[in-house]
Amino acid sequence: MATIALARGIPAPECLPVEELADCARAAVERDGTSVLSYGPVGGYAPLREWIAERHGVAPERVLLTNGSLQGFVFLAQRFAGARVLVEQPTYDRPLKILRALGTEVVQLPMDDQGLDPDAVADALANGPRPAFLYTIPTFQNPSGRTLSTERRRRLVEIARDHQLLVLEDDPYGLVRFEGTAPPSLFELEGGTHVAYSSSFSKTIAPGLRVGYFILPPELERELEAAAVATYITPVLLGQATVYEFLRRGNFDPNLRRVQDLLRLRRDAMLEALEAELSGLAEWRRPEGGYFLWLDLPQEIVASDLLANAEEAGVTFVDGRDFGGAPNTARLAYSYVSPDEVREGVRRLAAQVVAVPA
Amino acid sequence: MATIALARGIPAPECLPVEELADCARAAVERDGTSVLSYGPVGGYAPLREWIAERHGVAPERVLLTNGSLQGFVFLAQRFAGARVLVEQPTYDRPLKILRALGTEVVQLPMDDQGLDPDAVADALANGPRPAFLYTIPTFQNPSGRTLSTERRRRLVEIARDHQLLVLEDDPYGLVRFEGTAPPSLFELEGGTHVAYSSSFSKTIAPGLRVGYFILPPELERELEAAAVATYITPVLLGQATVYEFLRRGNFDPNLRRVQDLLRLRRDAMLEALEAELSGLAEWRRPEGGYFLWLDLPQEIVASDLLANAEEAGVTFVDGRDFGGAPNTARLAYSYVSPDEVREGVRRLAAQVVAVPA
Repeated sequence: MATIALARGIPAPECLPVEELADCARAAVERDGTSVLSYGPVGGYAPLREWIAERHGVAPERVLLTNGSLQGFVFLAQRFAGARVLVEQPTYDRPLKILRALGTEVVQLPMDDQGLDPDAVADALANGPRPAFLYTIPTFQNPSGRTLSTERRRRLVEIARDHQLLVLEDDPYGLVRFEGTAPPSLFELEGGTHVAYSSSFSKTIAPGLRVGYFILPPELERELEAAAVATYITPVLLGQATVYEFLRRGNFDPNLRRVQDLLRLRRDAMLEALEAELSGLAEWRRPEGGYFLWLDLPQEIVASDLLANAEEAGVTFVDGRDFGGAPNTARLAYSYVSPDEVREGVRRLAAQVVAVPA
Repeated sequence: MATIALARGIPAPECLPVEELADCARAAVERDGTSVLSYGPVGGYAPLREWIAERHGVAPERVLLTNGSLQGFVFLAQRFAGARVLVEQPTYDRPLKILRALGTEVVQLPMDDQGLDPDAVADALANGPRPAFLYTIPTFQNPSGRTLSTERRRRLVEIARDHQLLVLEDDPYGLVRFEGTAPPSLFELEGGTHVAYSSSFSKTIAPGLRVGYFILPPELERELEAAAVATYITPVLLGQATVYEFLRRGNFDPNLRRVQDLLRLRRDAMLEALEAELSGLAEWRRPEGGYFLWLDLPQEIVASDLLANAEEAGVTFVDGRDFGGAPNTARLAYSYVSPDEVREGVRRLAAQVVAVPA
């Protein structure tokens, strides 16, 4: 078996509804070709903008569609370049890099199994300069797979209100839930005055379409629109119109259930293999959805060393330090490879963990 | 008749090959869906990258596909933020704004009917700090419609070589030629060591696909790739794969001829109407292609005042000052409206010019 990519936090090819999207792309161009194929509104393809606005109960003008959600994060980060920004520890590595490259002071705040610690947010607000915003992924976080508890969500919303703190709730994984009940989003709880919301169709339809979106306070939406028009004039409407056609046909929910089923089997395979191979040696939690599982390895293990050995043994993962995590942590993704590969990957990884002298 | 948009430098809806692109989008996803719909190489869809590389005689690794060519210009401008950059006067307004927003010192160099004056480039190099690059649109320039003569191209290439000056040759309009013989590109003349080349499929297929490209010196290509991956991970492959399918089917040349024919009629209509209405009052040249025609109005006319009157009379154009041009200049685009609208638009405009007291 070739190298098994437990490092790749992306959907497996079998998650992608290829045939249906081929037909949606054709239909989108046939239906509305002169809009889709020309320059258009920088905020995005109007019917999709309206669909998202209705789903989240806001005016369409507050929705900004971008070529993937990272692009929108770049606009936001540039808007507040050089400021102080609060993030989780660990957190998604790409925003970390973007913020640091812009000279932003990044403050990583501790999490536990209930997600980000609201007291740590309050402390950060009480000590040091006022942060421009807090970046959080409250549900099935990348990289930890953790979900912020409802109680903490309420507390975080209170803090945001009390301190007029802008919170960016990044929620690409929230709908990729296999079991349990979804907690309310921060955006829902707060109402959208201080909480901005971002998501995308990368995990629910296909990442290659590069359709991300932001729901923003009106003034900030206009500012980021100005940045967007100065960068690319018009986002790629073809991808957005293809997504809209997919939604319009009622394909979203059935496809999401199919994707959830595919991913549940992979998560279960990973949990079973970890239980069989690493019980007592490492710690992890059962995520109710998403792509990731966070491994706390024995203190004496350095994940970067383990990774070198694991790669030789035919399995990859991501060193937790890439996300600002401890040296003995690792992100395992079960999204990209089959259940059999997940099991074999964990076996190969466990053999390397066991081989490290205590 | 509604307001006639001689301001809009974009293809008319009838230029867009809608039906064919609808089928190309479908075929592209069916043929290579798991590539097109997933994350992929940040440099762009490999078959299109290879097609462009072959066309320009370079290695594919030197081609960077971006979500529209302006996006790539942003990466280049950010790479050299705060430096000194040479541009033409007048020049495309969006790059001007991007450079200025980044704190770049923008030096606008004079042009005449033969295009950019190479002596002005040499002067700028002799006086003042070393510029990071020269941005030029040598063929059917936006906004002036002017084309750099072959003699001046050779001279500019000599200057670039002698001074190790990076030149960005932006060439979105070069193929949209109705008559005459195309001069060699700066890139061809120089060989690609100092001259970088950018173009797009916006004017030859459809702008909404947002497929721009750059051919860069290898090191610069890698630097801009790093900026691109940190911004959007993967460009929108669906648009790129649709373009590739269109090329693969042999549709490019027949479609281009169709577009050239459509635009030639519009240019001819504009030239005839100008001759009939503004002869002796304004000056212009006959562009052999592209979208634009540059109007030198009588000295006493302020284009921004004229524009206000013209808008009331039902025609729009762009004030030359938006491009760094003189107060009595205007950009007329014949690309977006029909020949009849072009004629009526020029009549409405001329009535406002004539109404200004000398």
